[in-house]
Amino acid sequence: MPGTPTGLFTDLYEFAMAQSYLEHGMLGEASFDLHFRELPSNRGYAVSAGVDHALERLDRFRFDEGMLSFLEDQGFSEDLLDALGGLRLADEVEVRGIPEGRVVFPYEPVLEVTGPLPWAQLAETVLLNAVHLGMVVASKAARCWYAACLGDGEVPALVDFGARRAHGVDAALEASRAAYMTGFEGTSLVEAARAFGIPCFGTMAHSYVQAFDSEVEALEAFASSFPEGTTLLVDTYDTLQGVERACDVARGLADEGGSLGGVRLDSGDLGALARGVRDRLDAWGLEDVSVFVSGGLDEDGIASLVEEGAPIDGFGVGSRLVTGMGAVTWDLVYKLVVYEREPVTKLSEGKRILPGRKQVFRRRDEGGRLVGDVLVALGEEGDGEALMVPLDPSAAGGRLEAARERFLEEFEMLPDRFKALEDPAVYDVERSEGLRSAEEEAVKHAGG
Amino acid sequence: MPGTPTGLFTDLYEFAMAQSYLEHGMLGEASFDLHFRELPSNRGYAVSAGVDHALERLDRFRFDEGMLSFLEDQGFSEDLLDALGGLRLADEVEVRGIPEGRVVFPYEPVLEVTGPLPWAQLAETVLLNAVHLGMVVASKAARCWYAACLGDGEVPALVDFGARRAHGVDAALEASRAAYMTGFEGTSLVEAARAFGIPCFGTMAHSYVQAFDSEVEALEAFASSFPEGTTLLVDTYDTLQGVERACDVARGLADEGGSLGGVRLDSGDLGALARGVRDRLDAWGLEDVSVFVSGGLDEDGIASLVEEGAPIDGFGVGSRLVTGMGAVTWDLVYKLVVYEREPVTKLSEGKRILPGRKQVFRRRDEGGRLVGDVLVALGEEGDGEALMVPLDPSAAGGRLEAARERFLEEFEMLPDRFKALEDPAVYDVERSEGLRSAEEEAVKHAGG
Repeated sequence: MPGTPTGLFTDLYEFAMAQSYLEHGMLGEASFDLHFRELPSNRGYAVSAGVDHALERLDRFRFDEGMLSFLEDQGFSEDLLDALGGLRLADEVEVRGIPEGRVVFPYEPVLEVTGPLPWAQLAETVLLNAVHLGMVVASKAARCWYAACLGDGEVPALVDFGARRAHGVDAALEASRAAYMTGFEGTSLVEAARAFGIPCFGTMAHSYVQAFDSEVEALEAFASSFPEGTTLLVDTYDTLQGVERACDVARGLADEGGSLGGVRLDSGDLGALARGVRDRLDAWGLEDVSVFVSGGLDEDGIASLVEEGAPIDGFGVGSRLVTGMGAVTWDLVYKLVVYEREPVTKLSEGKRILPGRKQVFRRRDEGGRLVGDVLVALGEEGDGEALMVPLDPSAAGGRLEAARERFLEEFEMLPDRFKALEDPAVYDVERSEGLRSAEEEAVKHAGG
Repeated sequence: MPGTPTGLFTDLYEFAMAQSYLEHGMLGEASFDLHFRELPSNRGYAVSAGVDHALERLDRFRFDEGMLSFLEDQGFSEDLLDALGGLRLADEVEVRGIPEGRVVFPYEPVLEVTGPLPWAQLAETVLLNAVHLGMVVASKAARCWYAACLGDGEVPALVDFGARRAHGVDAALEASRAAYMTGFEGTSLVEAARAFGIPCFGTMAHSYVQAFDSEVEALEAFASSFPEGTTLLVDTYDTLQGVERACDVARGLADEGGSLGGVRLDSGDLGALARGVRDRLDAWGLEDVSVFVSGGLDEDGIASLVEEGAPIDGFGVGSRLVTGMGAVTWDLVYKLVVYEREPVTKLSEGKRILPGRKQVFRRRDEGGRLVGDVLVALGEEGDGEALMVPLDPSAAGGRLEAARERFLEEFEMLPDRFKALEDPAVYDVERSEGLRSAEEEAVKHAGG
């Protein structure tokens, strides 16, 4: 179990509750569901993501001496500290959930954690934080992927450019990973490419052009450093003049056996400029040189460029992708659903809990297209594929390619009406008879 | 120089440019400005933050063998790899900037990095990522603080509750820190409390109440574990019934020499419920028991509760704080402003650069209130306090209390019209004669 212990990435109240549970002998088996209660407005689905990262953090959930001594300073009891000193959380709980890359819907448990009440409770903050981040980005990236697929011809490549505006180092890494999982070709962030084994892309910055005495000189210098298939940025001063200069550079490269790979635009009316740039390139006989655009894009910008048929071969997507713009936070929660075999609920306004352990069945039609899900009580029979599977924290990591394949297959089979960028249809998630009677039972007992 | 090397937290194109600069002997001195070009709509100021974190990452910006070998696999030249192998970025560049906790405005360089062109360029991704995150959260937290101060009586306490919805571990930690810097009392996140030496707060979750057979039993059990000043959550089932039960528990505690500290509400109409709860507490003679609320709040919710005079002693602020809702990303950029003593610019539509190294002077009136800033060319005289100071990457960290004091003093002196939550006035930032002539000069030379 290597890696930094994650035990203190926990809200203080989790420790207070754990101490009190120990004191009152409440060590019975509890199950918690990690799920969201509703989709953000204008969203038709979410994508399960961040799960492997959550498991990996769970695997490191333990306490070293310094952490215990900090908790002691906060006034926690010796009993709690003794228990935490020997705790390996991943050994105490059993985890099930919906693997990464699947589309998920309200109340479907992305994770379910079962174990002694104090310890299952303690996992709340660290698990929510990891799954929330993954889901925010993957659900956004899937929309960008859907937008990229709206055209008639070849699907343009999407590349994550967001490292500088992601909310921290781990957000940038997770964003690169989640985007790759949901159809992106790769990332500009070298650390992410290395960590996850995904393709890395990059061109040049405006500063490079500025540093030279002239744009011509800059483009020639860059091309001479990378004579095989590089991409030149052409919008530092005047885009159409810039592309003419790039064409000239391309001719020079060709004379020496090299070739220009592409040009990039990062500002202005990208559709109109892309057409202008494409025309110039074609006029120079550079039909193989691709046009790459970036600058404030997300699914809406991509969709309108793709639908208007702008001749764009690739999109760099940054800030809006990595922060999940439009649904930056989700009401992802971690709720007690069973204690000592009793399904439990609460009645706060607008914040119902579906009691009991669950399974989710996903039904498809004869063509393989998704028809709807059924949420059942664990043990109940159901039609279709059972989505929740046992998850092993010690085996997390390295499953990105499988998740990407899973996403690409399943997303293709999710009908367009649920994927629409505006006013998506509501996907059908039924609740079984068994689940509904568990709920009635729990409500009857609640609040006594 | 301990800690994990940060060299690969870099967009691929930075390495491509560095390689090309080395090849073309472009090792002259360059200066880059890290700044934003405009305030998000409805925002009157930003707060400098994330600067210490950026410096700390800069101090770790180097490359180990594994990183170099990954770059080799990406096809970079031996010359570049040799140079990176010995690089300690913090030793190669000089950094100036505006210390954390100050209010900042468009085009004011939060950081300025000067050094050999390839290396100063290489710092872009890692610095932007750190300052962006800090600034997003601190600028939001400052608005919450302003809202909390709008009432007539004692200013209610603000506590960061956002760890579970922050975008990753970094974001949660930085949010706790930035919020504390801008007026918050503390955080719920234990790791942040430990890392930054700030107060940690926590109550109990709904799951605690649900795990017991009845609410009464749960409140009694929790109070018996923490008989001195604990806070009880009273909205799991029916809030006004819950508070009656808490009062009963408080009486029991008092009989045994303990006391109840507060009650917390996390759902429903917080203003109305707070009044109901306050009435009940007072009717029981529990005037010292405080009312703490949480649930989907940010500056707008806080302002309306404070302005309507809701009897609330503290607010837990979560998702919307830690993601900087309303301005989740800023157009923070890192731009070349000088190369080999020549001020440089670019002319892309809507993305002007102010060329040249700078200083910012901040003027105050006789009462100490901020009047406006003047952006000057470095070396020019100016009235008021010079904001940009030399910053030492190896001395980053541990300056949070100073930053908090700086913020609280300066923010108090920023007139209300700039702090208004709606339609704030535009703070005056003039550009000096020297700066304007440098710009004209650079434009003349640009794009040749």
